[in-house]
Parts: sequence; structure tokens; C-alpha cells
Amino acid sequence: MAVGLEKPGPLKAISGIRLSAVHSGIKSDADKKDLVLIELSSSSSLAAVFTSNKFCAAPVVVAKEHLAIQDRVRYLLINSGNANAGTGEAGYRDALQCCDEIAQRSAIQRVSVLPFSTGVIAARLPVSNIFQSLPLLFEQLDKDRWLEAAQGIMTTDTLPKAISEQVDIAGKTVTITGIAKGSGMIKPDMATLLAFVGTDAVLDRIVLQDMNKQAVDCSFNSITVDGDTSTNDACVLIATGESGVVIDKDNQGFVSALKRVYQYLAQSIIRDAEGATKFVEIEVQGANSLAEAREVGYTIAHSPLVKTALFASDPNWGRILAAIGRAKIENLDISRVDLFLGPTCLLRSGVPDKAYREELGQIEMDKEDIKITVNLGQGDRSATIWTSDLSYDYVKINAEYRS
Amino acid sequence: MAVGLEKPGPLKAISGIRLSAVHSGIKSDADKKDLVLIELSSSSSLAAVFTSNKFCAAPVVVAKEHLAIQDRVRYLLINSGNANAGTGEAGYRDALQCCDEIAQRSAIQRVSVLPFSTGVIAARLPVSNIFQSLPLLFEQLDKDRWLEAAQGIMTTDTLPKAISEQVDIAGKTVTITGIAKGSGMIKPDMATLLAFVGTDAVLDRIVLQDMNKQAVDCSFNSITVDGDTSTNDACVLIATGESGVVIDKDNQGFVSALKRVYQYLAQSIIRDAEGATKFVEIEVQGANSLAEAREVGYTIAHSPLVKTALFASDPNWGRILAAIGRAKIENLDISRVDLFLGPTCLLRSGVPDKAYREELGQIEMDKEDIKITVNLGQGDRSATIWTSDLSYDYVKINAEYRS
Repeated sequence: MAVGLEKPGPLKAISGIRLSAVHSGIKSDADKKDLVLIELSSSSSLAAVFTSNKFCAAPVVVAKEHLAIQDRVRYLLINSGNANAGTGEAGYRDALQCCDEIAQRSAIQRVSVLPFSTGVIAARLPVSNIFQSLPLLFEQLDKDRWLEAAQGIMTTDTLPKAISEQVDIAGKTVTITGIAKGSGMIKPDMATLLAFVGTDAVLDRIVLQDMNKQAVDCSFNSITVDGDTSTNDACVLIATGESGVVIDKDNQGFVSALKRVYQYLAQSIIRDAEGATKFVEIEVQGANSLAEAREVGYTIAHSPLVKTALFASDPNWGRILAAIGRAKIENLDISRVDLFLGPTCLLRSGVPDKAYREELGQIEMDKEDIKITVNLGQGDRSATIWTSDLSYDYVKINAEYRS
Repeated sequence: MAVGLEKPGPLKAISGIRLSAVHSGIKSDADKKDLVLIELSSSSSLAAVFTSNKFCAAPVVVAKEHLAIQDRVRYLLINSGNANAGTGEAGYRDALQCCDEIAQRSAIQRVSVLPFSTGVIAARLPVSNIFQSLPLLFEQLDKDRWLEAAQGIMTTDTLPKAISEQVDIAGKTVTITGIAKGSGMIKPDMATLLAFVGTDAVLDRIVLQDMNKQAVDCSFNSITVDGDTSTNDACVLIATGESGVVIDKDNQGFVSALKRVYQYLAQSIIRDAEGATKFVEIEVQGANSLAEAREVGYTIAHSPLVKTALFASDPNWGRILAAIGRAKIENLDISRVDLFLGPTCLLRSGVPDKAYREELGQIEMDKEDIKITVNLGQGDRSATIWTSDLSYDYVKINAEYRS
């Protein structure tokens, strides 16, 4: 069902990072991996952003607490199939216990382990399954298991999402490899559930945090499937430093490569969105502020009426116009609004374009990749949002999930 | 498909109001009425609220202009099947022409006619169909055609919505009769598309406006199907004064009867919502403000994940919790939040209730009428929102509409 998304191409190992993935029994299907361990070399540094959902999951609480105490993370433990969210104090203890178990096995402190969970909300985490699987997980740790890790964090995803980029800096090669999962409950307010990106570059911790945040803003924080912000979102950027190449905050080559990785992963989530048959890019130009541009983009992207018209390949663009009109922005002058579907102008200065004919709209709507451009004619700020359509299969997947 | 909604019972005429409804050819199905005329006696007064969508339709612009000039409205002309929205200057002239035609036929001023439209956005109104139908519309005017009028304003509605209430005041009977339509693009920000309520009470114009606005706030402004605010919303309250009973603003008997009419009509729209299989009442208590209570209620009501779980009768209440957690309110202390499904407690003080078992949640979810209660534990303000679920048929109806 994924829209123009293929299986990941070859992935590059990141020196200093080893991974493993197994089936522990959290998912009922024995063919599906559901537990991932990522090991970082002792010199690695790490930056992370988490969901802003106030009912954030137990592992999010624990991960934030551990990062607040120290910054030398050695292990990430990620399970899929269970979110460990809405589980109260018991869920918090479950997450801590998992960290404890890994710390004891590897003779490190508990705070050097970060837990991550994704899956059904409000069910207790089966910790015994996790404990039983730890020996195998440690045994299988390998630098070339990025694809298995991408598979192990999947829930309703139909395809794993992973990519590598390399960039030459000062005669040396720096590598970035990232994986992500996500398909529904996608309207990240910080990062999406879940993304792990590693690089062998040497990055100062402050620079690492800034770069992670900036790359998230123009990728995971610019996508939506259903407007539902997950309780478990997290995006982690790891720099092992093994390449010996020091990157400062103004290194455009590296920053661009990092953004390509983040945007590829974020767009992959939309291409594999629950029930998606269309990949939709909404560019809002001419806004007074970035916030206004994003508000208009998200109002269009969240409209069930726009989304069902996209599913039907119906150039019923009155619904886009109605969405723009109800967006919560000040002083919109509709007589300055232009609207395009692909290259085809629908609305110019607030009124239907004279050259528009339904056939032209139909040509654009029949495509799998659809571009909507709005120019508000107010200012010079713009934003791009990526989203999917609303299909029968979206309803089917979400009416049947948990079964 | 409507959830617990029956055909309207007997409707009471309102002395001073006559109605007619015909098929003019705007809708392709010749069995469906699509044009309604409502005539008001010369002594009637009228109050109206309109959509806050900035791309409001041409008839909304014209109706507001006419009401700004004078307040003696004599005719309302309502068509279904075409919204005359997104039609620019041409659409504005079309709406004016319809008013002109009626004014000439009845020797009144154009500003005494208000036009209303509902249906497909961004298509020109077929005014010749309307003109041709006017003789028959005038000929058939009758005080007992409220049901036909309710049928004539339907679009994707499966049932007409209409109700009468009578209240005895100072030994005399005062009657209120109202009709409404709406099924999709429902998240009124002022009123819903479209409601017309008449009474034979004598009401001062200021009182009439206040009563209309207050009744709208706790009815049409408290429902949502899909979060999409229409370009054409309008709610009109007419007082003909023919009963001779003068109502002041503090008359609780009349205000209560009026609210019952508005709430019945608003809830009927939800019961007949596109593809609805559930009628859902969401009560948010313990908020710091009405705005916060409504924000939490609407965040739950708009969540596609909550709506698909409702469709599946799945007590997957983690999705409700995730929606509360992402609602845009300040300083939510999740350790004070209680959550109930019907009488069954799911969450107490932010953690899963010890007595909760899945079977108890299932019993509530299997019902057609579902009640969700959230207590935020912050303050003493509350709000109630009514909404529907998200089904295959919602997608089908909106993917196929226009065909």
C-alpha cells in the first residue's frame, strides 16, 4: 500500500554502533521482530527530542530522567507492540527494571540505558519476555544490523524505513545512517515515534542538540497522518566520533546531508501512512509568520474532507478553500489568496482562475504524488507539510488494530 | 444509517410563517426537493448568526449585507445541492439576482430577501433553474409545509430534521418550530448549515439576537463531525409575534423550550452524521475555563484514532488519553485527571483504575449512544460536545460526493 516507497537500499554501518533485533513475544506473530538493542561506543554523544504529549509514556519519562543526570548513553532498548503508556507507576517501574537488567549484564550504570516503546497504549509491558530475550540480543549485536533494527521497531508500518548518506569533509568520509517507524498517530509535536540516527562525525554536544532539533523541525515536525500526537514520540541522534572528523555548527555539507536523512525518513512515514494511497506535499507561501504558514498547512492536511477528496482523486478544491478559510490565522485577506494543484492554478486573488478547467485538476489529482501550493499574499514566510489521504483502509487498520 | 434518529413527529405551524419546497433541477435526482421559500409576515423580526469561515459563501455575504441595511425580512430563499461558495464576484451577482427576482414578484425591496445555499463548493449556481421554479414556489406557500422545507434543504442527510415545542406562558400557548440540515463539514464556529427556527412569540430584536446566540452556543456550536467548518453555516431565528405573548430575556420557560429545539436539531445532525454508527457525548468537567473544557472535548472528538475505535466498539481508551494529553491547554496536571466511559472508570488520578476490566469497557462501547466523561481536576468549568464515529461509510460518502 505504501505510496512510492521501496525497501531501503544498502545501509552503511556506523563505526561505534552495533545493533540487534529479535522476536520476544510482545507481538503475537512469531515472524515479527519486536525488541531492538542499540549499543553505543563509550565515546559517543547523543541528543534526543521527545513528544510534548502530557500523557507521555513511561519510557519517555525514564529516558528524559536519565539524560538529565548524565549524557554518556551506552544502550538503547526499544520494543514495539506495546507503548507502556497510560500504565502509571507500574509502567514506570517496568521501564526502570528493563534498564536495570541491561546495566547489570554490561556492568554499567542504569542511567546509561534509555528505554523506548511503541505500540498499544494502556497495557502493561511484558517484562519477562524482554528479560528472556536479552541474552540473544547481546549475542547478536553487530554493526550491520540497521535493517533488522528498522524492522524490529515497526508496528502498523508495511515497510521498514532506513537510509544512509555519506559526505566528504576535509578529505574524509563521514557517514550518517538512520531508521524510523511510524504510520498512524502521526502529528509529531517534537519528533516522531521513533527515529534513531547515527553518525561517525565528531560533534560537540550542544551542536548535536541544535542540529537534531533543526533537522526535526523541517522533517518529523512537518508531517501529519491524522493529527494525533503520540505519547511515545522520540528522535535520537548519535555521534560516535569514530571518523575523527570534527563538525562545527556551520558545516553546511553535513547539515544538508543530515536534513536529507531526516526528511527521507519523515516522508517515508507519510508514504507508508495507514491506508495511504497518495503522498501529498502542501506548501504554504506568503504568510506573515512560520506559525501562520504551518497553521494553514496543517488545517488543510487534517481536513477529513480534503483527505477523502484526495483518496477519490476528486479535484473538489472547494474543500481546500474551506479549510484555508477556517484556519486560525489573523486578518486573512481572501482577495490575495492564490491556490495551485501541481502547476494548475485553481484560485487567483481569491476567485476561481479563468483558465481553470476540471480536466486540468483531474490530471493532477490522478497522480500518486500530489502538490498543493497556497500563497496567502500576506508576507514572506513559508512552510511545507507532508500528509496522506483518508481511505477505507485507514478506517480498517484503526478499527482492527489491537486484534 | 442514522443513530437513534427517527422521522420528525407532527410539526406545529407558526402563525405568520408560510413555506414551500420544490425540485428545481439543481440536484440531479428529480425526486429530491432542492429549493425552499419561507415567507414571513410583515410584523416578524429575525436574528441570524453566520459561519466564521473567511471563505464564506456569496449568499452569506449578501444576507449579512441585507441584514445590515434593515431588519424587516420577508422572504428566505434556500437552495440545496450547490453552495455558491468560492464563486467570486459572479456568485455574488447570482445571489443578488435571486433576491431581485423574488422582490419584483412580491413588490418588496431586494434587501428584504435573504438567500441561503448549501451543497457543492466552487460551482456556479444554476439561477435559471431557480427562476423557473419561483411561480410554483409562491403558489405552494403554506403554513403546514415545515417538513417539506426540512426535506428541501437536505444534502447528504439521510433524514429530515425538524421539531416543535410548545410552552404555556401567562395562559397562552407559544409555539416554536425549527428545521435544520447538516451531516458533513460540521464543526460550526457560529452556527451550522442550515437551521431555521420560528416562533409566534413577541420578541424584542435585541432579545431575539441574544437568545439565538445563546441557544446556538450550547447546541450547534457544540457539535462536530469532522472538524470542517462550512463556508455556508447560518442559523436563523424568526419571531412573528402572532401569539401576542411578549417574552422578555429572563423568561426561563421560553428559553428552555428554545434550547430544547436547538439541541434536538444539533444532536440530530450528529445522529445523522455522514457514516455515523455511534452518537457520542463528551463531557469535560473540572476545567479552568469554558475554552479549556471545549478544547479538550474537541481534541477527543476530532481524533481519527478515537473515532475509528468508537466505530470498532473497541474500548481502546489509550487513544482518548493520548488526545487529552495533546490538547492545547496550559498546565495540565495528569495526576488529577479522571476518565469514564459511561459509568465505568478507566483512569483515576491519572492512573488506570484498579477495578477496571476490559469487559466493563466493552459493555459501554457496544452501545449506540456512548458517553465519555473527563474530569481535569483543575477548576469548576465544564462543556459538552457531541460527535460521531469515523466509519467506512464516512470515507465512501465523501469520496463519492459530487458524483
